Formats: sequence, C-alpha cells, structure tokens
Amino acid sequence: MNFAGSHILSVQQFQREDVELIFSIADRMAPYAHRRRVTRVLDGAILGSMFFEPSTRTRVSFGSAFNLLGGEVRETTGFEQSAIAKGESLYDTARVLSGYSDVIAMRHPATGSVAEFAAASRVPVINGGDGSNEHPSQALLDLYTIRAELATKRRSLDQLRIAMVGDLRFGRTVHSLCKLLSLFPGVRVVLVSPEALKMPPEIVDELRATEHQVLESDQLESSISNVDIVYSTRIQEERFSSQEEADLYRGKFRLNQSVYTHNCEPNTVIMHPLPRDSRENARELDDDLNENPNLAIFRQTDNGLLVRMALFAMILDVVDQVDRHARDVNWYTASRF
Amino acid sequence: MNFAGSHILSVQQFQREDVELIFSIADRMAPYAHRRRVTRVLDGAILGSMFFEPSTRTRVSFGSAFNLLGGEVRETTGFEQSAIAKGESLYDTARVLSGYSDVIAMRHPATGSVAEFAAASRVPVINGGDGSNEHPSQALLDLYTIRAELATKRRSLDQLRIAMVGDLRFGRTVHSLCKLLSLFPGVRVVLVSPEALKMPPEIVDELRATEHQVLESDQLESSISNVDIVYSTRIQEERFSSQEEADLYRGKFRLNQSVYTHNCEPNTVIMHPLPRDSRENARELDDDLNENPNLAIFRQTDNGLLVRMALFAMILDVVDQVDRHARDVNWYTASRF
Amino acid sequence: MNFAGSHILSVQQFQREDVELIFSIADRMAPYAHRRRVTRVLDGAILGSMFFEPSTRTRVSFGSAFNLLGGEVRETTGFEQSAIAKGESLYDTARVLSGYSDVIAMRHPATGSVAEFAAASRVPVINGGDGSNEHPSQALLDLYTIRAELATKRRSLDQLRIAMVGDLRFGRTVHSLCKLLSLFPGVRVVLVSPEALKMPPEIVDELRATEHQVLESDQLESSISNVDIVYSTRIQEERFSSQEEADLYRGKFRLNQSVYTHNCEPNTVIMHPLPRDSRENARELDDDLNENPNLAIFRQTDNGLLVRMALFAMILDVVDQVDRHARDVNWYTASRF
Repeated sequence: MNFAGSHILSVQQFQREDVELIFSIADRMAPYAHRRRVTRVLDGAILGSMFFEPSTRTRVSFGSAFNLLGGEVRETTGFEQSAIAKGESLYDTARVLSGYSDVIAMRHPATGSVAEFAAASRVPVINGGDGSNEHPSQALLDLYTIRAELATKRRSLDQLRIAMVGDLRFGRTVHSLCKLLSLFPGVRVVLVSPEALKMPPEIVDELRATEHQVLESDQLESSISNVDIVYSTRIQEERFSSQEEADLYRGKFRLNQSVYTHNCEPNTVIMHPLPRDSRENARELDDDLNENPNLAIFRQTDNGLLVRMALFAMILDVVDQVDRHARDVNWYTASRF
Repeated sequence: MNFAGSHILSVQQFQREDVELIFSIADRMAPYAHRRRVTRVLDGAILGSMFFEPSTRTRVSFGSAFNLLGGEVRETTGFEQSAIAKGESLYDTARVLSGYSDVIAMRHPATGSVAEFAAASRVPVINGGDGSNEHPSQALLDLYTIRAELATKRRSLDQLRIAMVGDLRFGRTVHSLCKLLSLFPGVRVVLVSPEALKMPPEIVDELRATEHQVLESDQLESSISNVDIVYSTRIQEERFSSQEEADLYRGKFRLNQSVYTHNCEPNTVIMHPLPRDSRENARELDDDLNENPNLAIFRQTDNGLLVRMALFAMILDVVDQVDRHARDVNWYTASRF
Repeated sequence: MNFAGSHILSVQQFQREDVELIFSIADRMAPYAHRRRVTRVLDGAILGSMFFEPSTRTRVSFGSAFNLLGGEVRETTGFEQSAIAKGESLYDTARVLSGYSDVIAMRHPATGSVAEFAAASRVPVINGGDGSNEHPSQALLDLYTIRAELATKRRSLDQLRIAMVGDLRFGRTVHSLCKLLSLFPGVRVVLVSPEALKMPPEIVDELRATEHQVLESDQLESSISNVDIVYSTRIQEERFSSQEEADLYRGKFRLNQSVYTHNCEPNTVIMHPLPRDSRENARELDDDLNENPNLAIFRQTDNGLLVRMALFAMILDVVDQVDRHARDVNWYTASRF
C-alpha cells in the first residue's frame, strides 16, 4: 500500500507488509527522535491537532513527532472552545479545518466520528482515538515495541505469547492490538479480565478465525506464567455510566514485583498503554516495578514518536527526503534513550 | 494608507483603495495558502494569539496564516487561564504581552475591549472580534469572497445585490460587511430578519447615506429572488440573555435546496460566516445544499487564510519579500482548493 | 557552575558568580528579545511547556523565549486535560513527557512537585512556580531588573535598600528574591505586610544570617521613605482557604502617585511581579502611577525574556553559538523597548 495522501483510521486497513514497512521507516526515525540529528523535511507544513477529548501524551506525541520532522502544529482542545458547541456538524468542521493544515491528527469521544470527519476532510486524517473504538497509532507503537523487545531476545513476532489484562471491554488499545496481531501467525493470546469487562466477542472471533490460540481467564497469576508479554490496562472509568460501577473493577488485577517474580518467566516484558492509575485503590502496575528492566512502558511512549514520525513521513510522501534535510544536533542532549 | 505597524481594529479605517490593495496582496498569497509554495519570510517572528472567547476557526485561521508566512504562534485561550481572572486590567495585559510578540490577534467578548487593549499595546493588534461589535478580517474575507465569486461571472463589486439573513442585530460579521459595502457604489442590500433582530439603525442609516438601496423584510423567500449573494447567519445565542429567548428565533429562516431552486436566480452565491447551526431546530443553511456548487461557505474560510496572510504581511511590512523567501512544496498535497 | 543539562529548581542552587554569569548572558540576548536580530540556534529543539496551574505571562514568556532562540514549544495546560486526572503519578508523567522534548518548563500548585517531577525527568526542568514555594526565573528577572534600574543611577546591587510590600507569606516571588539577595552584601530589606501575611521566619532568619538588615513593619508610608526599590505584591487570594479571608487583606497597602510623592525619595523604583490587581477593592499599585518613569513593572516582564533565554541557552549549552546562527530582522518592528 502506498500511504501518500491516505487517512489512518483503523488497523484494519493494514496488511502485514504495510506494518513491516511502517516499522522499517520508524527505525529510520530514531536518530531524529533521539536528538542526535535534526531534520527539517516538513519545514512549512502544518499539522492540525484536534483533540476533542482530554489527552496529554498522545496529543504531545503527535505534535512533537511533527515538530521533529520540521513542521508546525496548530492545536484545538476540548469541546467548549469549539464551534461544535454552537451546533456545527463534523462535516463542516472537517471542511473548514482541513483548509488550514496539511494533515490532521484527531481524537473524539464518539465511535466512528473520526472516520466521519475524514470523509469530509480535504487532507489526510490520523485517528488518535475515537471513543472505545480504534487508536491505530497506539496499536502500531505497541506492536513496534513488542517487536523491539523481542528482538533483544532474538525472537520475532511469529509465535508471540501475550497476556492482556484489565479492562478489555472499553480499552481501545487492546482492541486495535488484537486486530494487528491477527496479521502474524501462531500468536497465543491470554485475555484476563472481569466477566463484565471481557474482550468484545467479535474481536475474539476474529483472532480465532486467523488460527490464533485465545484463552480467557479472570485470574491474573495463573495467566501470566507462560507469556513473552504482559500487557496491562487501566480501568477506563470515563467510559462507565457511574464512578461506582468503575470502582467495582479498579485494583482487581495488580501486577507488582512480587507477583512478577513468583509467576512470570524471567525477562517477561511488561507493557501498558498508559496512563497507569497509581492511586491506592487501583495500581494495576505497581510502582515497585519501576526499576525492573523488563518494564517497557516508557520505551513504548518513546517508540510512539518513531511510529508517528513514520506515519507522517509516509502520508506526506517525504520518507526518502528525511535524511537529505538533516544535520547534527548542536545543543546539549542527555543520553536518555 | 501604509499599514506598516498599524492596528486593524475596524473596517471603518479602510478606504476603497485600501480594500483593493489588501485584496490584490491576498491574491498573491494563494500559492502559499494552497500549498504549492512555501515562504519563510517571517521566520523568527511571533504572533501572540489571544482568544478570550471560544473560537476554533478564526483562531486557527490566524495561526495558520502566520505559520504559512514562516512565523511562530504563542496562544492564550479562555479567561480562566488568564491573569485577567486575578484582576489584571486590559492595560497591564497589553503592556506585558506586547513585549512577547511582534503582532497580536485578539478576540474578547466586550465591545471596544480590543481597541482599549491596542491603545496600550506596543505592537500592532488585529481585532479578531470584540463582542457583537467588529470583526474586520471576517468582513474583508467575506468581501474578498464576494469579489472572487462575482469575478467568475465577469462581474465586479459595483452594483452588487446582496441579501443578509438571520440575526442581523448581534451578528458582527454583517455589521462589518455593511460598513465595507458602503465603499462601493450602487449596492442593493436586502436585510431579512425577525423584527427583534433587525440590523442596528445606525448601520442602515450609514448605508443609505452612501446612496445604497436598503430594503428590510421579515420574509425569506421573496427577499432572495433578485440577488447575487445570499448571506445567511446563525442566531448568536450566546449574546441573548436566555436560551429561551434565542430559541424563539432559531430555525426561523431556513434556506435549503428546494427554497433555493424555487426562489433564487441561477448561480446565486450562498455565503455564511460559519459556524452554521446544523441542529434539527436551527439549520439556517440545510445540509442538502452541500453539493450545490454555489455554496461558497468553505471557499470563504479558505479565503480567510489569504486575507489574514495579506494583513500580516502588510502590517509587518514584508509584502515585497514574501516571494524572495520562497521555494516549492516538497511534500504530498491533495488538489483540494 | 556549568548549567549544561541542569535543572533550575530553586534559587538556592546559585552562587553569586552564577547569578552574575546568568545576567551577563541575559545582556547578550537583548538584540534578539528586542527584535533587532533573529537567531535560529535552537532550530529543531522542543520545549515542553507544562502549566498545571493558570498562567498567562510566565507561560507565554517561557514559550516566546524559546521561540526567540529558534525552538518549538509543545504545551499542556490545566489538570482536566491531563493524564494526572486519570491517576497518573508525577513520576510517570515525567518519564513520558521528557521523551518528547529537550527541556521542560513546568508550573504546578503543589510545593515540591516540580522537584519531584525533575527527579524522574530525562531532560532538564525549569521550575516555573510550585505553589507558594519557588519561582526561580521570576527571582532572577526581578534581580536582573533591580540591577538594570540601579545601573542607570550608577549603582550596584551591593548595599541595596528594598521594601517588599503585601502578601509576603504566600508570595513565592518575594521568597525567592530574598534568597537571591542573600548572595549580595549589605542589603537592607524592609518587609511590609499584615501580621498574618508576614514573611516566613526561616527566610527572615536566612537574610539575617547573611548579615543583612531586616526590618518588619505593618505601615506602608513610613517604610518606603529610604529605599531604592519598592517591590509591591498582590494578595495571593487563590492560596487562602476562603475568599472572605483573602478580602480581609486586599487593598490594605496601596501605593499611588500621591503616596509616592509624599514618601519616596526621587527616582525610587517601583516593581511588582504582576499581575497587579486593578479591581476597586485592591489596587496595590494604582493606575495613576502608569506614567511615572520609575514604574519598572513592564521592564520587569520584558527582562523576563532575556533571563529565560539565558537559562535555556545555558542549560542547552548553546551560549556561544547564539550569535553564529543570527541575522537581522527583516520585518517591521516598533521602537518599543
């Protein structure tokens, strides 16, 4: 697939070769994301960043990725600041705002809203999360991280064993990740959640249809003993009808260093889409894991820059120009990556 | 008039030759706004974007226009984030913030506030809307659009026939547009509104004083049959003392394809300052007009970039340098304009 | 001290020679801040601007300072937009966001929060205010301004006489300024406040320990008669437990032109960290001082750009490169400085 001018709305639009192409281009972004080199390939281009739902990390990650390629960012956050509050349709918003930028990254609380927006947009749109539906760049950075973590163990994505833990019903990141995993052979997925927060059956069916092994469980400890990756998630309390209902499930599956040591294989990688909930009654990933070298959660967010830079470069068709507009960084940089 | 260093506070500061100069410079901005060329003429300059009232389109349009000239944008939105909430005077805010930027675009809910701010500012200020008073860049982009739409019919602004429809009392865009129209001879204006939302009499008087023909009506269909332009507006509900009062008038004048077909001359141009209210009980411009080629509402917002780029270039006195700091766009651009 | 890669968390980390170095570098930033020259030394660098508490002037000042050096700014404002609202720890926020930028400027309502954040950050962090604790760049710009104002009278910081007036308990700027003053010999400080809003005793003790003369008073007029600088402050009402309590102290010490003329030595410099509260019942610095040439409050905020540019240049180790990436400004600039 040639991505020039394409929307990125769902992981379902990707074939395995697309994913591998994105990852190979993401690899090439490392010198820029890690502040050894500067490129200005998108000098003069504008990203419209439209987050109609609270977000810090995804919003800043998209913005920084675009800045790292040399472009500018114009942001809109929240509904109250928006014409939508005055009754404007998504169609109108899209027609108007797509005249002001070269590409748009958008988050919106309603399922399907980003696709509806993209249909009216005159420039490519990347879905930065539409309700509990899709968040394709997150799924890509998760899979990129799994690939990178396994690579240090000389393994590939084929025959991956992964446990997904927590709110599998509302957590859009695990939905999108499952769909991506369908592209790779022989994956074994253990789904750990309370009964009420199980993975939607259509996603489970899709995994099984591609001959993946899927196990479902409501026990954490027995489920994480034979996996390469434990992918923990936060209870998405903002998607519940009441705080009380959400509280029923907070703190139900807690991974800490002791549970890890007693149950996991050595070097089992710990992931999480973040934010993790560090409040007393939640702590799905305990702070005592912070020094565990297998905790990959911050490598995940770092990888988000690489993947998003790759997507921008592909959509705007400048992949082969990136290195031509480059020079060394001339300021102090910590060796932080 | 030489605009270098000038505030742009009201359309009243313009003579016809000023308007024509702005438009001729706006024409020259098209290659940049349409992403065929990139200019960095304002590389290093900073726009202070201060929107003390909700705005997406105007705020982003000013910001993108400045980015397209190569400059940076520092934004402030909302009161709650502002020192004004701590009792700071507009004088102080202006003295301080004008030290941080080269030019300021500002919106504020109070009539006259932007002029008060500008009087204390040490850099030029563009009024991005002060309550129901003025919004000069909107009036300019509206008139620029009228001129461009008529040009495709080999007509000029002289002897223009235009119907303005809806909330003519609180809609600042129609106020400013009427004042601009006074500069051109022989304009025929039909004002269509409920009695309670009529155009302020001083504006009507001013039109009449310049020998324009002004008709007032509270009937839509009979009023749009002999005009070049139908300029529809939204009920400015945020200016009413209660939602109930605003609701009395929502949905009162609805233009849809059927009304258009039965009443308008062929090729009558449809305009709106946006956002249009697409909620069931409003719909002053129905969605079924979206495929009508005479619907110019998105060409209006696109033209906003041209006009705002022209204003920035003139105020900062770089008009003749724009093309010297230019190169071709090197990334994918849809043919969207 | 070599600042490359350092956090700037507290004025306590500075020795006198550090302060003098910062000021000499700030002096060199004047051509850029005053828009005579443009430098792009930080072209490609990203500032993470994270203001978890309302701020206009400090936030915009940091952002503009970074832009003036050629860098980009990615902003986060408010809690509600942030993952912190979903239970994320400062540790996690810091680990994540420090992967997206080269340096961070941060404000947070909780004392010590910025230091906690910095401990987890992978890039240098500048404290832009942590509750009523510290705000080192403000203290530096205050002292820089005092030095500059005295210089026009051919005086130095040694033997400075200064009165600090108002809310000395919650006003973090006076806390940090006192600590900085401890580095200079023979300073005489008059502290004027209501009993309940006195300067914290540990700060007074520290001043006295460095052999400074400290007087405390609850009378304005007698306290400002023999000083070089009157430093007025606003009642920090957002730090009180109730508005009623704050109102007890608003308007208690009002400096206006008449009080100034009758009590101050000629050319006594008037300063204020801003915002000043111009509401009827406050007015700690009356508007009738606006034409008094000794009112230095806007020179203070202008100097903030210089000091923050200096800090960024030092932290990112580009001081000696600034002038090499420079050219003349090519757009209109008012002679406003």
